[in-house]
Amino acid sequence: MKFDPTLYLITDDGYLEGRNWLEAVENAIKGGVTVVQYRSKGRGKTAREMYEELKALRELTRRYGVPLIVNDRVDLALAVDADGVHLGQDDLPVEVARKVLGEDKIIGLSTHSLEEVEKANDLPVDYVAFGSVFRTPTKEKPVVVGVELLREAKKRSKKPLVAIGGIMPYNAPEVIKAGADGVAVISAILGFSDTYKAAESMKRAIERTRRELKLLGLLP
Amino acid sequence: MKFDPTLYLITDDGYLEGRNWLEAVENAIKGGVTVVQYRSKGRGKTAREMYEELKALRELTRRYGVPLIVNDRVDLALAVDADGVHLGQDDLPVEVARKVLGEDKIIGLSTHSLEEVEKANDLPVDYVAFGSVFRTPTKEKPVVVGVELLREAKKRSKKPLVAIGGIMPYNAPEVIKAGADGVAVISAILGFSDTYKAAESMKRAIERTRRELKLLGLLP
Repeated sequence: MKFDPTLYLITDDGYLEGRNWLEAVENAIKGGVTVVQYRSKGRGKTAREMYEELKALRELTRRYGVPLIVNDRVDLALAVDADGVHLGQDDLPVEVARKVLGEDKIIGLSTHSLEEVEKANDLPVDYVAFGSVFRTPTKEKPVVVGVELLREAKKRSKKPLVAIGGIMPYNAPEVIKAGADGVAVISAILGFSDTYKAAESMKRAIERTRRELKLLGLLP
Repeated sequence: MKFDPTLYLITDDGYLEGRNWLEAVENAIKGGVTVVQYRSKGRGKTAREMYEELKALRELTRRYGVPLIVNDRVDLALAVDADGVHLGQDDLPVEVARKVLGEDKIIGLSTHSLEEVEKANDLPVDYVAFGSVFRTPTKEKPVVVGVELLREAKKRSKKPLVAIGGIMPYNAPEVIKAGADGVAVISAILGFSDTYKAAESMKRAIERTRRELKLLGLLP
């Protein structure tokens, strides 16, 4: 599965309750989402519930040719044959996850400092997420790293770098100009009832910026 | 790894906080525990913390030749090369877990009714747990099945059956007489500061009952 991190959607439970969540995700994919990460945090869902949700998401993402990444739970990723996992610094060590998952799965790692980004260069991870770039409603106490640190992180990283945290269409250009290979969002898409339009706005903001950078010779 | 369910210890977090938990488990093994299940429920431990605890437990159980079973988390079981997993009715479906784990790992399944016991006969599980046989302090609202239903469950089960729930040295004999192949305990061992003695009392109660049953020709 081709991994294009351009517009990386994280399916936080809080934004999906009380609506047809699968349809919300499908519309976001139609609007331009290139990767979907399933994340169910602290909502007390059973493994069986998460497995059932993931099965539906697996079918959907396969239909659209979009990679499916599972947050934290390596077993659920294996159970539904997801394309990979995303791990935080408090999850299973990536070396261990790599051993369990094998070479073909995507492994992403959350990083919040230059030190963690540089450490990830030597780890068996396929991409890093770096943030929170801005303040965000989905984390109570985010480490806000800012755009300048993001720029530095991109310079030091040997891995594709996905920016995360408070990214919206109006500030996505800064993030792309700072070198991010993609942006990961929750509220910028799932915070809206029309997830198709929300995804499309993000995608356009990113693509417009990339075109500018190309014209300036700053992107290949 | 030989799986002898005689005295099956579940390491519930609540009973292990504020003490040298690894030593408590080691003493319980010395006292006669034949299987250890790692269970960390709703205490908000990170996967990394559970992984680190499990690594220590893996080393310990290997040293004593005692199988290590991981509750729920198939990924953690794979991560530390545990001998198997124990799944509840709300966890990953056992068929899925079997596919992920392969043929060599032990899979146990919690059951609470004759229907679930009979269903398990056709599932790829190596043993079933049946209970709660008695009232127990470790579950808020246990389904108390009682000794008579346990006897019936054993008759209908094609799998080794471990009785669970409120079993102590004084009522273990009833449970063994009802046909249980072993007893699973938390508080009967971890509720005591001297886990060696606590395990030894349970083991003795079980063995004494088995000798009686053999003398009566009721056990091979």
